[in-house]
Amino acid sequence: MGRDLSALFDPVSVAVVGASDDPAKYGHAIAAQAIRADGRRPVHLVNRRGGTVLGRTAAPSLSALGEPVDLAVVSVPAAGFEDAVDEALRCGARAIVAITAGFAETGDAGRLRQQAVAERVRAAGAVMVGPNCLGIADNTTDLFLASDTFTPGGIALLSQSGNLALELQLRFRPHHLGFSRFVSLGNQADVTLVDLLADCARHEGTRAIAVYAEDFGDGRAFAEAAADAGKPVVLLTAGRGDASARSAQSHTGALTTSADVVTAACRDAGVGLVATPRELTVAVAASINGRRAAGRRVAVLTDGGGHGVVAADAVEAAGLSVPELHEPTRQRLREALWEQSSVANPVDLAGMGEQDPGSYAETVAALLAAEEADAVLMTGYFGGYAAAGGGLGGGGTVLATGEQEAARLIAERHRATAKPLVVQSMYPDSPSCRTLAAAGIPVFAATEDAARALAATAPGAPDTGVTPLPRPAPPLTETGYLETRKALEEAGLVFPAAREIRDETELLAAAAEFDGPYVLKALHLLHKSDAGGVALGLAGPAELLAAFREMHARLGAPSYSVEAMADLTDGIELIVGVNRDPRFGPVAMVGLGGILAEALRDVAFTLAPVPADRAATLLRGLRTATLLDGVRGKPPVDVHAAAKAVETITAFAAAHPEIAELEVNPLLVRPDGVLALDSRAVLA
Amino acid sequence: MGRDLSALFDPVSVAVVGASDDPAKYGHAIAAQAIRADGRRPVHLVNRRGGTVLGRTAAPSLSALGEPVDLAVVSVPAAGFEDAVDEALRCGARAIVAITAGFAETGDAGRLRQQAVAERVRAAGAVMVGPNCLGIADNTTDLFLASDTFTPGGIALLSQSGNLALELQLRFRPHHLGFSRFVSLGNQADVTLVDLLADCARHEGTRAIAVYAEDFGDGRAFAEAAADAGKPVVLLTAGRGDASARSAQSHTGALTTSADVVTAACRDAGVGLVATPRELTVAVAASINGRRAAGRRVAVLTDGGGHGVVAADAVEAAGLSVPELHEPTRQRLREALWEQSSVANPVDLAGMGEQDPGSYAETVAALLAAEEADAVLMTGYFGGYAAAGGGLGGGGTVLATGEQEAARLIAERHRATAKPLVVQSMYPDSPSCRTLAAAGIPVFAATEDAARALAATAPGAPDTGVTPLPRPAPPLTETGYLETRKALEEAGLVFPAAREIRDETELLAAAAEFDGPYVLKALHLLHKSDAGGVALGLAGPAELLAAFREMHARLGAPSYSVEAMADLTDGIELIVGVNRDPRFGPVAMVGLGGILAEALRDVAFTLAPVPADRAATLLRGLRTATLLDGVRGKPPVDVHAAAKAVETITAFAAAHPEIAELEVNPLLVRPDGVLALDSRAVLA
Repeated sequence: MGRDLSALFDPVSVAVVGASDDPAKYGHAIAAQAIRADGRRPVHLVNRRGGTVLGRTAAPSLSALGEPVDLAVVSVPAAGFEDAVDEALRCGARAIVAITAGFAETGDAGRLRQQAVAERVRAAGAVMVGPNCLGIADNTTDLFLASDTFTPGGIALLSQSGNLALELQLRFRPHHLGFSRFVSLGNQADVTLVDLLADCARHEGTRAIAVYAEDFGDGRAFAEAAADAGKPVVLLTAGRGDASARSAQSHTGALTTSADVVTAACRDAGVGLVATPRELTVAVAASINGRRAAGRRVAVLTDGGGHGVVAADAVEAAGLSVPELHEPTRQRLREALWEQSSVANPVDLAGMGEQDPGSYAETVAALLAAEEADAVLMTGYFGGYAAAGGGLGGGGTVLATGEQEAARLIAERHRATAKPLVVQSMYPDSPSCRTLAAAGIPVFAATEDAARALAATAPGAPDTGVTPLPRPAPPLTETGYLETRKALEEAGLVFPAAREIRDETELLAAAAEFDGPYVLKALHLLHKSDAGGVALGLAGPAELLAAFREMHARLGAPSYSVEAMADLTDGIELIVGVNRDPRFGPVAMVGLGGILAEALRDVAFTLAPVPADRAATLLRGLRTATLLDGVRGKPPVDVHAAAKAVETITAFAAAHPEIAELEVNPLLVRPDGVLALDSRAVLA
Repeated sequence: MGRDLSALFDPVSVAVVGASDDPAKYGHAIAAQAIRADGRRPVHLVNRRGGTVLGRTAAPSLSALGEPVDLAVVSVPAAGFEDAVDEALRCGARAIVAITAGFAETGDAGRLRQQAVAERVRAAGAVMVGPNCLGIADNTTDLFLASDTFTPGGIALLSQSGNLALELQLRFRPHHLGFSRFVSLGNQADVTLVDLLADCARHEGTRAIAVYAEDFGDGRAFAEAAADAGKPVVLLTAGRGDASARSAQSHTGALTTSADVVTAACRDAGVGLVATPRELTVAVAASINGRRAAGRRVAVLTDGGGHGVVAADAVEAAGLSVPELHEPTRQRLREALWEQSSVANPVDLAGMGEQDPGSYAETVAALLAAEEADAVLMTGYFGGYAAAGGGLGGGGTVLATGEQEAARLIAERHRATAKPLVVQSMYPDSPSCRTLAAAGIPVFAATEDAARALAATAPGAPDTGVTPLPRPAPPLTETGYLETRKALEEAGLVFPAAREIRDETELLAAAAEFDGPYVLKALHLLHKSDAGGVALGLAGPAELLAAFREMHARLGAPSYSVEAMADLTDGIELIVGVNRDPRFGPVAMVGLGGILAEALRDVAFTLAPVPADRAATLLRGLRTATLLDGVRGKPPVDVHAAAKAVETITAFAAAHPEIAELEVNPLLVRPDGVLALDSRAVLA
């Protein structure tokens, strides 16, 4: 169930340690906020010089209060931080909000200091947010312990940046979106993003959770908590543009960036991943009313041609479709609209809205009822008739009244269905659009925002989820090619026949055990292929021997592997790898292999272990997926077998935390099954 | 020099035919606007019922005025349109603005009607905008012949949509952007988008040209006019999302969509192509101050960590880079800033801005002076200190004054350099940001807009331009494989040796002329390869004969081509094609060929003919371009020779307007040159 944060969000009493009468001090701003909810619970102000703060007598210390304190905000200079926390714990505090800065963000010494404090807090059975945080607020319990006021609403905001939180508040306002809670994450010395996410998931007053984080801490736990949240989670994060691949020894490593990992984890967990405050606002505005589209088909309604085609393009650019309307819908629209109106998709009122604003509502009703549309987008001038300063034809009282009536009708039709309806308007702040927004219909000024909002309501990939890590298997002690191969074979992966040989005698004996053509691989080399340590297609024992002599003279490897050469006809080479990410644990990569793998980077990522269903979805989503179905007369390959192999490989890697990188490359997929042609592992 | 539109934009006198006293009529709105500039030139109102319009006596007809009229606005019912235009021409009109609707937009009969009128207008030496347009305006000559007022400024807007023009006006306003001219394009029966573009390029009062168009008319002429405009041109267009490839007989055709063609033409012509009104606003705001970045390196300055990393990601997502700052810049910043400020890129004031707003100006100055940065992006809270209702720490008078002084200093530093500076602010409407905007510094509320604005100032591809079409060559009469091949060989493209044969005797004679291995191709088949009409790698005459017998029995083709098999070792197969677009003429496609071409769609488009320099740039821009340099120990291929071949092929196609589709596939590029292995042409 996660940690009990009730003392943090609904304390019995509060004290602000470091409350100040100096408006330039942060302890002033927090104290001023804290006392706003005085009636709800006792709020004490503490200043070591005593005196008066905000017109109240400040206690010189927490102990001097003479009564226990449930939550202590600590906003004192860094030198006095430990003493202040210790005193708070002695006074019975079950929760600490640590504003004081100068810890992990300044280096290792600071990190050790905050760790020591966090341990004492936990030992006392308490919880601590921060240090180096800007405070917390909970509008559902009248708890105001940050310098700013947050408009009440349904969104819990967990943020590592104060200014971004302010920008989000400014951006949410026109969408009538407000906050259930605000938590400034700070250094997460004790209470982490994951703890807070889990608590907000349980919190009745929270309908959606917005996160700005640079440091996920335990990323795997974040993904698991988000997948289990049961309400929309939207993540704004940054630093993902750094495409410099980490120094890694496998191709999987070189092809995996931290951006890929975060993107994959969010998709698996159903988290909306965004890159800017504006995108976060769109995603939250789209999802907070809880509506989900059953599919990706959008009906577009406009009052002027230009907006309709621009919106149709934006809808397609957002990954949705704008299908033809079915005849019953067209017929209904023909009856309701003008002759010059277009009943194709986009539906274009073509001026009728100006004469009869009710036509907007009629059309929205018809499109919400259309079985061929999963969602509806209305775009253009609507709102302008009743807008102050509306342009072309705007301002007429009759039209304004008609438009506002239409807005009420649209809101009513919307209530009667569960289908998402999103509006783009040139006049988003108009009375008519405010009526729509108040009814829970997201209204945007920008067409692309409206389209992305609909995309945020569309169904995700059919098999997403975060599969729990398996219990660790007994660790591998050796990870040479043959040892890893043997372990993978035991896990169920099929390789061609192979024998390890050290000299010509052993080579010829091995060759006698199975038919050619043969493959010869030098062992104990990291990049066998790049080093010229792999010879393919050796027709018989004579060619095998010649290759051995040449290779051995050149590389002098201590041993070699003689293998049966697989039949590559009609096969496709895949690459399957698992990299252990320091935050997200084992991360799987599947993609097109062979010489094109690096040139194309046609790869997909997901958290390991990967069930076969999800593996098949990922393979089908590759840019080159058409190759799987056979092109130019080739037969299709066995995607089901490939997906099962991905499951086997990733489950194996997930059960072996001692393996930093595991790669099967190539994994040959043929019409009749799969064969692993090479593998390698690197220990952590 | 293009058509003379002086009577359209600066007429000696104006008459509004169809002026009305009924506020519901469009002729009322236009008349009300027209008489605003009465002092500049005579404005006559004409209503067939005479009477009073807007407090003036309306003439019952143009003729009744008794004096010539230079420009006539025609806003009468469709039935009376021809008569009204004819009368205007009789009264000496040199320009017609045709509001009346009901022509080409209603079908072919309407198209014929408007064509007939346009011919009479041209025969009279006059020009006509429309019909089915909303009017025109020219703020530089006080000409107001549209229903709306457009704020004066430097942008000419040519639009096919009235509502989108209104939205653009609303979006431009906060950026202090206004209009030199507005033209509603209507049906372009006489004056076209291209005519207007050319005239606005010459117009002194116009600094940038914004276009919303669905119908380009002569797209090639549009691209040429835009390339020659000498000022920024930004195009908003729609209907590009329709990815359904047209029914075409070549791979080039199937791989080319109308979106590709428009995108390629815009890149060649240096036109900023955008998909939404918001994107258009960003592009215009970015380019109107005329600043261009010398490269793609951006220095980012923030006052809070979150905004800095979000902006750095957005800058990279926009195709720019955020490089390390050089030591002299870092040293200068260290001296100017706090110890806790970060002098990396992004530079983070880390709270110093709140204590000393001058630090913003100092930092901007240092970054504008830094040789390692081509442009500067300032992001975050700036503006908030002086903003009404500014949040965290906002509102203090001292800070507000300091911030406004900093804004003035930033404007001064900006004036002293030619480097682009763009600002993202949580408070874009604040007094400080208004100071920046008034100084020509683009200010945006959204981080991604600021980043895209910088991208719009960054240098384009090194070789863009629209190469004129060559004079047509004598048309090909036959376009079988061998005929096309021969014509391309004469143009300078190299193919392997080949002989056409009809029977076994001819086959063996051909085989004697050059060495194997051979290729055998059945002729007169559209997709030889898919039909099993190509046999490769036939070692000697015996294998060739066997292949011929098998193929002839199966396909019964009338003749075959015996060819020398090219050495494919170390070669890469490209596809080079030219498709004739109905609007943009010959459009070239280059890309990776072979079996992966369709699976990967790794292709690039440009208007043909293609000079070798541009061809090389396109090849280097392919996703799989690393293959050209040789991967896994292969030698690099001769890109220069490939580019020359593209020049040859595309120049040939451009000189043969009778060819609808031409394709060389594969074009084999080897380390030592190129060889065309197959070609095909389809007549228009």
